[in-house]
Amino acid sequence: MTVGTPELDPYNAGCPSRRILDLIGGRWTVLIVGALSDGPMRFSDLQRRVDGISQKMLTQTLRALERDGLVSRVARLQVPVRVDYELTAAGVSLVGPLHALEQWSIDHYTGVAQSQQEYAGRE
Amino acid sequence: MTVGTPELDPYNAGCPSRRILDLIGGRWTVLIVGALSDGPMRFSDLQRRVDGISQKMLTQTLRALERDGLVSRVARLQVPVRVDYELTAAGVSLVGPLHALEQWSIDHYTGVAQSQQEYAGRE
Repeated sequence: MTVGTPELDPYNAGCPSRRILDLIGGRWTVLIVGALSDGPMRFSDLQRRVDGISQKMLTQTLRALERDGLVSRVARLQVPVRVDYELTAAGVSLVGPLHALEQWSIDHYTGVAQSQQEYAGRE
Repeated sequence: MTVGTPELDPYNAGCPSRRILDLIGGRWTVLIVGALSDGPMRFSDLQRRVDGISQKMLTQTLRALERDGLVSRVARLQVPVRVDYELTAAGVSLVGPLHALEQWSIDHYTGVAQSQQEYAGRE
């Protein structure tokens, strides 16, 4: 903790770091940041890579990620102008944690699905 | 990949592993799993630890985590009966990845807040 930085603790309701938790763990953030970890991509390429995401949801999520400083829009001066989305340094620092979530969901899919079936049978 | 296990890829819209991403990265899951990583807790203790969570949201999130096999309810035979919530083995395996998200939100709070201010100023 740097001197002068207030103590941050997301377990406290008033702590602003808690709000950031809403931004980073969502399904689309995990997949978009993961896709961009391979390098800059155009909107249409991202939409192909993140199969099934709607144009509206991709636009919204990219805007939120840009607002939070995780993704930047880069216009390349060519004809026609090409706009790429790429991770900022902060975005790159999130690749590892989010990849761990992605991998967890793959590794634990079978167990979670089985637990859900058993739970449904109990009700 | 074990023989007989279908290839799982959350980038495909039809892949069931994608759905699990909705369960694990949420704000309340991060905080509840983090709280339970210190040991079993009663409902009322959890509600105190995760400051500001409503009774309804805590009930819903615990039920979802139980359904997915990450948390189990353990009734201890004493008078009055004491009910604890504790992490299952699958839940314990999620502690590390979720703690990384929690830590990221603390470490990057300042940068994210600054980016949001700049973004608001540009609009």
